[in-house]
Amino acid sequence: MTSLPTFSDIEKAHERIRPFIHHTPVLTSKSINEIVGAELFFKCENLQKVGAFKFRGACNSVFALTEEQAKNGVCTHSSGNHAAALALAARMRGIPAYIVMPDNAPEIKKKAVAGYGAQITFCEPTLAARESTLKIVATQTGATEIHPYNYFNVICGQGTAAKELIEEIGLFDLVMAPVGGGGLLSGTALSSKALLPNVQVIAAEPAGADDAFRSFYSKTLLPSIAPKTMADGLLTSLGSLTFPLIMNNVDQIVTVSEEKIVEAMRMIWERMKIIIEPSSAVPLAAILENKVDVKGKKVGIILSGGNVDLGKLPF
Amino acid sequence: MTSLPTFSDIEKAHERIRPFIHHTPVLTSKSINEIVGAELFFKCENLQKVGAFKFRGACNSVFALTEEQAKNGVCTHSSGNHAAALALAARMRGIPAYIVMPDNAPEIKKKAVAGYGAQITFCEPTLAARESTLKIVATQTGATEIHPYNYFNVICGQGTAAKELIEEIGLFDLVMAPVGGGGLLSGTALSSKALLPNVQVIAAEPAGADDAFRSFYSKTLLPSIAPKTMADGLLTSLGSLTFPLIMNNVDQIVTVSEEKIVEAMRMIWERMKIIIEPSSAVPLAAILENKVDVKGKKVGIILSGGNVDLGKLPF
Repeated sequence: MTSLPTFSDIEKAHERIRPFIHHTPVLTSKSINEIVGAELFFKCENLQKVGAFKFRGACNSVFALTEEQAKNGVCTHSSGNHAAALALAARMRGIPAYIVMPDNAPEIKKKAVAGYGAQITFCEPTLAARESTLKIVATQTGATEIHPYNYFNVICGQGTAAKELIEEIGLFDLVMAPVGGGGLLSGTALSSKALLPNVQVIAAEPAGADDAFRSFYSKTLLPSIAPKTMADGLLTSLGSLTFPLIMNNVDQIVTVSEEKIVEAMRMIWERMKIIIEPSSAVPLAAILENKVDVKGKKVGIILSGGNVDLGKLPF
Repeated sequence: MTSLPTFSDIEKAHERIRPFIHHTPVLTSKSINEIVGAELFFKCENLQKVGAFKFRGACNSVFALTEEQAKNGVCTHSSGNHAAALALAARMRGIPAYIVMPDNAPEIKKKAVAGYGAQITFCEPTLAARESTLKIVATQTGATEIHPYNYFNVICGQGTAAKELIEEIGLFDLVMAPVGGGGLLSGTALSSKALLPNVQVIAAEPAGADDAFRSFYSKTLLPSIAPKTMADGLLTSLGSLTFPLIMNNVDQIVTVSEEKIVEAMRMIWERMKIIIEPSSAVPLAAILENKVDVKGKKVGIILSGGNVDLGKLPF
């Protein structure tokens, strides 16, 4: 049984990845602050390498490998940001990355991953095919499997975003992050509680993919069943590491409607002039939907990523 | 006759406006660097207050007024970013702003200016009507007219963006900015040449609005005649202050096609995850169109603003 990460593991991760990541800016918007009656500080992981916080965890996982492990490379199955992040991190260390992708993955994502020099194996678009194909790839290559979120060093890497945010801005009443598989949320909660013992950590989740919400309040790890949301980064279920970390360190999980996700996304595009993907908009959506009381508070929000298809905007 | 600003005026402007402006981030993109074979550093004035560098000049102009002058307020005619910038700066100082706008200005711009508490006077959408209406407003109120670019303290304020960029990053081979009325360009050139005596300063202009290009190479101030470009911030002609500053401090002006403006704009949206308006894309468009040789060079680029209508994107 793997032990759970602590804040000191996040500190080590930060030292390890610091030369490779972007120290992303923290942005504020006077007009959004006026609308919500609070002081919001947005940590812009949409401006991170590969356009998402995922690069932090992938980078930490790749550079934490021993020379012996590293020479065989890393592997994962993913059609999203984790695949690109792992491919880039492996290229930076000069080791192979083997990515299993469903053959119906968007061309743009296949190209991005191939562009970072990863070797792609295509499979049927089912979880069973993805997992069995990955097993074959791992056996043939000896590559280390890096799970997108339920992986010690991935969680530690993701926690460095909140650490940077708090080190830069100082005290917060509240820190918010979206929740999908829980890698970002559990890392965020670990850093927040370690640096600010009185802070509240609140996660926001689309109502159409509310497995974390149901798991949290039933104190039982429940899977995501037929999730449906435009926030395509948040379709996954919590894992055996992220679930206990969330139970121990998160104060509240709230759900939000698709309508408010679009409204929040558009508000950030128009008023902050940055491109965020729908998943990133979920915490602000929760505030706009009055699911979280932020009046007069100082609130840190992790904007998780900015990878959207400009040809398919929801507005 | 007004004297021309020098770098020491820009230093004073910076001290004056520092408490009010955003110190905007400088962003880089590994993938764009690979495409162009250079190191590009983007100064993100799209993330400035009111979404454009215009706030720097407006703010400097408003806060440079004596108490006596300030109490009567400021006025201008504008349908664009300068109107919003001046309105916000005036609100920050607690003085009135009187804005003359053509009655066919977009609703969204009228609302933005009104939202900052400015008093709007509408007029016919002709330059003659705008100027005569402004004269009446100025006479009735005693407000100080702040021209959008051909104004000493506006130019000094605009020059603080390049000053911040160079102070943060250090040496550059080349600094680029778009040119419309020349306020941003002349301020950028003054700061760049003062801080980096060997730097080249190159301006980029849409081929469909090439008055600065023609003026620069004929050494004669020529007006913009029926300009046509999607870069709606660059339709104006150089002025009596900006023209000599540009002749003295700019090394080269190049023109770019509309096609490359769209390509550059989309490249920045997709790869850098920030929203820029077409005017901001013009320098990168010049690089993509091979109008400027950047191979192996370190290049600073001012991204001028991010105010676009999300319902009317060119892609």
